[in-house]
Amino acid sequence: MTLLELLDYASVFVFALTGALVASRAQLDIVGFAFVAALTATGGGTVRDVILDRNPVFWVAEPGFIAVAVAASAVVFFSAHLLESRLRVLTWLDALALAVAVPAGTGVAMTLGHGAAVVLLMGVATGCLGGLMRDVVCNEVPLVLKQGELYVTAAFAGAAAALVAAQVMPQGAALLVCAAVTLVLRAGSLLFGWQLPVYRSRPPRR
Amino acid sequence: MTLLELLDYASVFVFALTGALVASRAQLDIVGFAFVAALTATGGGTVRDVILDRNPVFWVAEPGFIAVAVAASAVVFFSAHLLESRLRVLTWLDALALAVAVPAGTGVAMTLGHGAAVVLLMGVATGCLGGLMRDVVCNEVPLVLKQGELYVTAAFAGAAAALVAAQVMPQGAALLVCAAVTLVLRAGSLLFGWQLPVYRSRPPRR
Amino acid sequence: MTLLELLDYASVFVFALTGALVASRAQLDIVGFAFVAALTATGGGTVRDVILDRNPVFWVAEPGFIAVAVAASAVVFFSAHLLESRLRVLTWLDALALAVAVPAGTGVAMTLGHGAAVVLLMGVATGCLGGLMRDVVCNEVPLVLKQGELYVTAAFAGAAAALVAAQVMPQGAALLVCAAVTLVLRAGSLLFGWQLPVYRSRPPRR
Repeated sequence: MTLLELLDYASVFVFALTGALVASRAQLDIVGFAFVAALTATGGGTVRDVILDRNPVFWVAEPGFIAVAVAASAVVFFSAHLLESRLRVLTWLDALALAVAVPAGTGVAMTLGHGAAVVLLMGVATGCLGGLMRDVVCNEVPLVLKQGELYVTAAFAGAAAALVAAQVMPQGAALLVCAAVTLVLRAGSLLFGWQLPVYRSRPPRR
Repeated sequence: MTLLELLDYASVFVFALTGALVASRAQLDIVGFAFVAALTATGGGTVRDVILDRNPVFWVAEPGFIAVAVAASAVVFFSAHLLESRLRVLTWLDALALAVAVPAGTGVAMTLGHGAAVVLLMGVATGCLGGLMRDVVCNEVPLVLKQGELYVTAAFAGAAAALVAAQVMPQGAALLVCAAVTLVLRAGSLLFGWQLPVYRSRPPRR
Repeated sequence: MTLLELLDYASVFVFALTGALVASRAQLDIVGFAFVAALTATGGGTVRDVILDRNPVFWVAEPGFIAVAVAASAVVFFSAHLLESRLRVLTWLDALALAVAVPAGTGVAMTLGHGAAVVLLMGVATGCLGGLMRDVVCNEVPLVLKQGELYVTAAFAGAAAALVAAQVMPQGAALLVCAAVTLVLRAGSLLFGWQLPVYRSRPPRR
């Protein structure tokens, strides 16, 4: 298995866990869990593959991805009641999923020989769109656009770090740098409140 | 006309009726009806064709599909006020649309020679995504994810039945089995409350 | 630069301004602005290119589009507080964006040799879907489906005007007619309340 496949598998598994957790908040049945899990898990990578005209789409080429997503949803269906706070676990699994999905998108775009702008966008899109679909479909406030947190910024910084790192090291190592930068920024935001200045409709008065 | 085209036409027509009914709840004008109807009617099949790289997309190859969706939206615009309960009619038309869209997706994936996992997912996606787009865009609670009803489950069971049936009968007959299984499960859920156990955040106390 | 590229650039720039304005209402940071701006700016054209199997997608072929969207989001981030009414500016920029995106979609479909139905739908889809994604993702009431306004109708009439005009003049001139018809109808709706009859659940009593 290549590193890119491994990143796709990790991203599918962890995003599927988050999708199933959101399904548990909506009190769906086990097939509903699998549906939301599969949508979340494959959404970002499917958009990536369709936009880059990568044929076949990753989970059509290798249906093991679907099996992983279904297995993840079953795990959550039978164990989520053991969790103290599902929202907390959801937020942290989502952070972990972001940190593997961004290098998965970045790596595919690099391997196909795209320029920096497309690589950056594919990293951000692969990382962010699955979770965005999950939250829009289940009518949750999207984690991706939560005010005062680093999310898209963490994805963007990770993809940018991969581009820089790939100048001085092999692509595989650069993708690990990407994962680390994304995770550190997202985790720092959750733990320590790291954020960029947000827009305010009026400048602060003196 | 092949059976697959017939299923696509039926799915477009009935899903367009449901889209127009949702547009009537939002009090749109007749062009708004046609827009929501066309989005609902073509959404699932478009995702199917894009993911399976089926070129051209079904309604680009044969614009008669668009004419059917527009005609359906006009019918609803001028007659919906005659209905006793639009929500009830919407729910049942949606069930019927699901029962033709699932075999439409299943059949295309089978004909292209895909394996069981992709066939199952294409059946579910073709059946469920048009209605999901309709409800998300019009800010309705998605029928697809309504708690305590069989919806994704009916689609999944129908696609699975088609896979099994195709081992012992021609594909056309297997798709009719698929439609029947989907419709019976969805209708049984609406009429008799059939459902799978839903997730509860705590196990029942003794 | 061809006229079609110019229309795509104008559409990306103005839709990005509207996306950034919606991001300002959600009080996102500057990367969040760029994310919503890029989604809004590229959404409609990406759907168009994927459905028409136009490879590569316009902004993958020419990353200058992304630079334009990012620049537009920075402009809004640092200047939106100067506006008297962001909603008013948003609505008018959105009308302008619609009036360049509809000919952008219409023109591409015409150039690829598609028939009237596909040209009409690609005009409407390219014009409407980016703004629809923006509003759905940011949980705003979609401008596209606002009751009692011409929006989809303006897009549809513009695309239809292009089809008729192209019979008697060069395609470039026909696309300018398309832009003018779309803008006049949308602006007339905003200024003078032009609208089509909307659906009412009961006919007026005598």
